[in-house]
Amino acid sequence: MIKVLSEIDQKEIIKGFKARFIHTATNTIGYVEIEKGAVLPEHSHHHEQITQITKGTLKMVVNNETCILNAGSIIIIPPNAKHSAIALKACKVIDVFSPVREDYK
Amino acid sequence: MIKVLSEIDQKEIIKGFKARFIHTATNTIGYVEIEKGAVLPEHSHHHEQITQITKGTLKMVVNNETCILNAGSIIIIPPNAKHSAIALKACKVIDVFSPVREDYK
Repeated sequence: MIKVLSEIDQKEIIKGFKARFIHTATNTIGYVEIEKGAVLPEHSHHHEQITQITKGTLKMVVNNETCILNAGSIIIIPPNAKHSAIALKACKVIDVFSPVREDYK
Repeated sequence: MIKVLSEIDQKEIIKGFKARFIHTATNTIGYVEIEKGAVLPEHSHHHEQITQITKGTLKMVVNNETCILNAGSIIIIPPNAKHSAIALKACKVIDVFSPVREDYK
């Protein structure tokens, strides 16, 4: 099955976070554009999350550890880890969630 | 855990296919640079594979169906599907394999 990223509907999942999703049998992949200054409040979920920054700068706090992520950085967030984020610059990121994010369908 | 893509060792997994891998609890993600003309012979594996083209043009044959993939295209290859590829232009792709590719560790 082929998908073209630009043809996938973009949803604003949180103010300033606009995402396109692909759901497979095992994973959800999110292609996310984040406005500068947008805030993802602290939360957790049972899905493992791998976040790759492809553009911009994202400050994340994962289990109370703060990190600054630039393009080319990848962070692995274990299941149930508390995490939050703020975009220090406008960002593009690719999130891989396992298992599927049913709540993003 | 944070990884910086440029600091991950690049392995030539097949002639003309140079990859950096991240292995998590559930997935292997491969960041692959493919030389123009490089060929991935037909094969299959029990892992689901999601291939995103981020640069270039890749011709793939999946279960005897041919497709031409350009930057922004994403193809979902089900477990055990036969697939092969040739790079019509030099490519960069991101592969997500589920479960982990133990053979790429």
